[in-house]
Amino acid sequence: MAKFKLDEIDHQILDMLIDNTRVPFTDIAKKLLISAGTVHVRVKKMEDAGIIKGSSLTLDYKKLGYSFIAYVGVFLQNTSQTTFVLERINEIPFVTVAHITTGKFNVFCKIRAKNTEHAKDVIFMLDDIEGVYRTETMISMEESINDKKRLMHSIFNEL
Amino acid sequence: MAKFKLDEIDHQILDMLIDNTRVPFTDIAKKLLISAGTVHVRVKKMEDAGIIKGSSLTLDYKKLGYSFIAYVGVFLQNTSQTTFVLERINEIPFVTVAHITTGKFNVFCKIRAKNTEHAKDVIFMLDDIEGVYRTETMISMEESINDKKRLMHSIFNEL
Amino acid sequence: MAKFKLDEIDHQILDMLIDNTRVPFTDIAKKLLISAGTVHVRVKKMEDAGIIKGSSLTLDYKKLGYSFIAYVGVFLQNTSQTTFVLERINEIPFVTVAHITTGKFNVFCKIRAKNTEHAKDVIFMLDDIEGVYRTETMISMEESINDKKRLMHSIFNEL
Amino acid sequence: MAKFKLDEIDHQILDMLIDNTRVPFTDIAKKLLISAGTVHVRVKKMEDAGIIKGSSLTLDYKKLGYSFIAYVGVFLQNTSQTTFVLERINEIPFVTVAHITTGKFNVFCKIRAKNTEHAKDVIFMLDDIEGVYRTETMISMEESINDKKRLMHSIFNEL
Amino acid sequence: MAKFKLDEIDHQILDMLIDNTRVPFTDIAKKLLISAGTVHVRVKKMEDAGIIKGSSLTLDYKKLGYSFIAYVGVFLQNTSQTTFVLERINEIPFVTVAHITTGKFNVFCKIRAKNTEHAKDVIFMLDDIEGVYRTETMISMEESINDKKRLMHSIFNEL
Amino acid sequence: MAKFKLDEIDHQILDMLIDNTRVPFTDIAKKLLISAGTVHVRVKKMEDAGIIKGSSLTLDYKKLGYSFIAYVGVFLQNTSQTTFVLERINEIPFVTVAHITTGKFNVFCKIRAKNTEHAKDVIFMLDDIEGVYRTETMISMEESINDKKRLMHSIFNEL
Amino acid sequence: MAKFKLDEIDHQILDMLIDNTRVPFTDIAKKLLISAGTVHVRVKKMEDAGIIKGSSLTLDYKKLGYSFIAYVGVFLQNTSQTTFVLERINEIPFVTVAHITTGKFNVFCKIRAKNTEHAKDVIFMLDDIEGVYRTETMISMEESINDKKRLMHSIFNEL
Amino acid sequence: MAKFKLDEIDHQILDMLIDNTRVPFTDIAKKLLISAGTVHVRVKKMEDAGIIKGSSLTLDYKKLGYSFIAYVGVFLQNTSQTTFVLERINEIPFVTVAHITTGKFNVFCKIRAKNTEHAKDVIFMLDDIEGVYRTETMISMEESINDKKRLMHSIFNEL
Repeated sequence: MAKFKLDEIDHQILDMLIDNTRVPFTDIAKKLLISAGTVHVRVKKMEDAGIIKGSSLTLDYKKLGYSFIAYVGVFLQNTSQTTFVLERINEIPFVTVAHITTGKFNVFCKIRAKNTEHAKDVIFMLDDIEGVYRTETMISMEESINDKKRLMHSIFNEL
Repeated sequence: MAKFKLDEIDHQILDMLIDNTRVPFTDIAKKLLISAGTVHVRVKKMEDAGIIKGSSLTLDYKKLGYSFIAYVGVFLQNTSQTTFVLERINEIPFVTVAHITTGKFNVFCKIRAKNTEHAKDVIFMLDDIEGVYRTETMISMEESINDKKRLMHSIFNEL
Repeated sequence: MAKFKLDEIDHQILDMLIDNTRVPFTDIAKKLLISAGTVHVRVKKMEDAGIIKGSSLTLDYKKLGYSFIAYVGVFLQNTSQTTFVLERINEIPFVTVAHITTGKFNVFCKIRAKNTEHAKDVIFMLDDIEGVYRTETMISMEESINDKKRLMHSIFNEL
Repeated sequence: MAKFKLDEIDHQILDMLIDNTRVPFTDIAKKLLISAGTVHVRVKKMEDAGIIKGSSLTLDYKKLGYSFIAYVGVFLQNTSQTTFVLERINEIPFVTVAHITTGKFNVFCKIRAKNTEHAKDVIFMLDDIEGVYRTETMISMEESINDKKRLMHSIFNEL
Repeated sequence: MAKFKLDEIDHQILDMLIDNTRVPFTDIAKKLLISAGTVHVRVKKMEDAGIIKGSSLTLDYKKLGYSFIAYVGVFLQNTSQTTFVLERINEIPFVTVAHITTGKFNVFCKIRAKNTEHAKDVIFMLDDIEGVYRTETMISMEESINDKKRLMHSIFNEL
Repeated sequence: MAKFKLDEIDHQILDMLIDNTRVPFTDIAKKLLISAGTVHVRVKKMEDAGIIKGSSLTLDYKKLGYSFIAYVGVFLQNTSQTTFVLERINEIPFVTVAHITTGKFNVFCKIRAKNTEHAKDVIFMLDDIEGVYRTETMISMEESINDKKRLMHSIFNEL
Repeated sequence: MAKFKLDEIDHQILDMLIDNTRVPFTDIAKKLLISAGTVHVRVKKMEDAGIIKGSSLTLDYKKLGYSFIAYVGVFLQNTSQTTFVLERINEIPFVTVAHITTGKFNVFCKIRAKNTEHAKDVIFMLDDIEGVYRTETMISMEESINDKKRLMHSIFNEL
Repeated sequence: MAKFKLDEIDHQILDMLIDNTRVPFTDIAKKLLISAGTVHVRVKKMEDAGIIKGSSLTLDYKKLGYSFIAYVGVFLQNTSQTTFVLERINEIPFVTVAHITTGKFNVFCKIRAKNTEHAKDVIFMLDDIEGVYRTETMISMEESINDKKRLMHSIFNEL
């Protein structure tokens, strides 16, 4: 679990990319008074080390008709089925996050759906996976915070 | 709740950006046999309509020393404190997601921390917010799925 | 708790009214081979005895934009507040049913709302009533049965 | 989900019918200064559009010997049995309401019975349906509110 | 459910028997200024009517080495097994009370045992009955009240 | 906790009294081939030692109009109030049994009431005691076993 | 359950051994003004009586890389499997404590693991034992007290 | 969190001490073919590094009259009181273990008591600490495993 060492320049590059993944490397270079080639090399190095795993678009799901968010706790008949069930869950695009947990639930999922009726269908898809014993759902009334940028900045400030 | 209308070209542009937010517009233009200016105009239009809200880096939190994920359910003394408490929660960078829920919990958060001890500190920060009555924590043993791309592609295929 | 005695004619009148409260008394009279005056007298008598308390329209709430149904369990700070709280609840038109229960909850309500956001507002109205300590919500995914007619026919068949 | 458009006249007709479904159309006509024929046409139109689905008698169940109300949460062995189980539940006249829910319970029912002993029999009928795994019952001590009229008036005032 | 009518004399006889079931009829007669024969007839009548079902000794279980009291909730695999399971429970003398309940548990028992180890054995006997799915136990730390006499006097005062 | 020693004769006397507390001592004497005086001395000795604490009538509560049985779990604000609250509970004759428990509840009671409405009143009496924070009720659908005689015989057979 | 009688000298010897199991008998002898042989005899006697069952090293598990502590509640399919399952649990060295409980869980274990991932593996080992139906885990954030010495001194002071 | 490095000799010394903390260093030396001085130096080094924190006697609590074991979950009014409450808990010798947990409970304790009545007293001591809101108790029916030796050997085999 030895960690890749990032220096001050790496942090500043990441700080800029966190705010806007599409910022041109030439802009980063100008800001940090280094060459664009250096930015490119550094980013490449962090990608190779697996620190930067990619980037993702932040869409407005409400505007796209997906305003329903729920958390679904899944009980398995037996934990030996965990891997198999997670593969089946992975085939349902409406499940955006899934965790193995060891408290009350075996697997804990976040789903996005169009509305109550669609959510029912998605939950029934989960319920119908072989090895799933029962599910329990908690519905979000409002997604008030969904922001990893504060965490990322906090990590780099602290390093 | 009238939805912005996206056409086939918009979908194809989004499909490419979903896979890599840093793909140059010229590459998108070449692939779709349209001009780079058109790509630029379309993306600008989707940003103005609020459909594209930005982009975010996908970092490997484990490699950055943040391998501990937990979900924390927050009970408030009174729901009239919801807005106030969410503002306080928003000041804790280790809380990456927070929902208003109306089942067992009033607010439901996802936190990322360095380890058990750090997680205890973060949970105590939540507990110490004025108006928070109690918290209940569920710890993730493995984040098996964290992927909105499948959902995004599914949305555009279906539109 | 002495019960009002209904005879066979009363049952047959009720059986017809249950299926359609707007059926003209002349139609009932014709069917049962009695005079319309008798029907009138019998219905009046059952109204005076408090057996028939009125009638209600059955509207399609979905078509009227109210497709969200939830059950909300209310915990009071003290049961001596029950009457006071029920009076406040009675001022919220979106609460269509409320029971005093003595299990987990003190009061148990059924609400109808337009959508998730509206439901959140209604639940917050409940939470903000003085004396309400906490609420817990269970959301309906589909109202599969809502039919008192089967029960009414069953009661009259059995009497 | 396009909604049928109701105008001011429709609302006023509904407002009168909500208070008394048996009010003669001539009375409504007189009150609204329109012809009875218009009332008839309007009501017919709302019935055809499915907004008015019918009407139901409001009986005093206590006076009829049915003073026991309970809510029964049903756990299924598997959600694929939901439709089958709901059909069986629909054969029990003492179940007046049933919802598909996705929280703790799969199906949530309201029952009316004569007394404790009869309620036990009804719950055992539910328990004995094939595919039902367990039930959990919450007993009502008093039905304090059961009134859709406030909601209906509220809907028409707001439209 | 027509109730047997008790008069004032019956109440006074019962009041004396409640305090001491072994009080001689001659003592009751003297106190109430009636003949011993009348007392005898009255008691016989109440026994025949099933109001007096018998009498029971009140022993000090602690002094007899049975100081451990617990309540055990029994979950059945299916409620159709209720009668069968209750017959098996009835064979365990350490179960002094058993109720059919319809909330969380199917059957709810009170047990008396010698100590922790003996209680474990009794609970295992319950767990081993065919059709019993699981049990949940709540242990009494002190039996502070066990007294039906206050209730009996209250009933007769009120009649 | 030294136990009083009972010999074979004591057991046989108790065995007879368990079945019928009103059995005359002369009958016991005849059966056991001892003198009535001996029976008297033995019983007196067991009363003095506190083994026999008294006797109680077994009435048919249903026939007396008390057919409703419930178990009520009481949560206190603070366990230091336990003694005070138990004294208040002791003033409610409808509470026939109360235990100090240390699991979910602080105090656990058994109540007998006339019907649902009366039970609500009794539970509200409990809720209104100063220091009582909340109550949770479980309703009995049938008292299938209520019999200490099997236990008593079992104790004496085993001694 | 007759208890071995310890005298004042035994208590003083135990008091010294509790603080340091490796203290030489000659030191104990000097302190208590008795011969080392006497100490030896006394300790031997307490070992033979089974009062002293042995001694154990207190290691710093954190320094040894085992900083993760969790409590795992085990639900069995049937309590008749308790002995069999406990034998399987006994083969997992990371389970340091296991109790038979009769409340919510059948068996309750304490585990020590290296980290979250290792804990997941240990919990899966428990889940995979034949007869184990489900497990529920509670994670320790800090072991604040782990000290039997206070209890031991308390026992000897009191004897 | 850099770990102290133990070599093969250290492991073998620990392996012997784990089985018997009172084994003389000369015996260890003979077995491992090293000098007693070396054993002494090694053990001293491990004590200084904090790996060996001491040793404890393993007594038979049952024989000493302490046969009652329970786990008590403590809910605090506010987590800011955690340190204060733990200091108070530390003054109760019957609490042998206490953890800060962040799930359902704030603090989770293991207690040993003489019997049910004594356990009630200990739990009341916990309940009476300022800042403690409620406690929930789970009683052990049998301590089936309490053995850290298997874990210790496992750690040294694996290093």
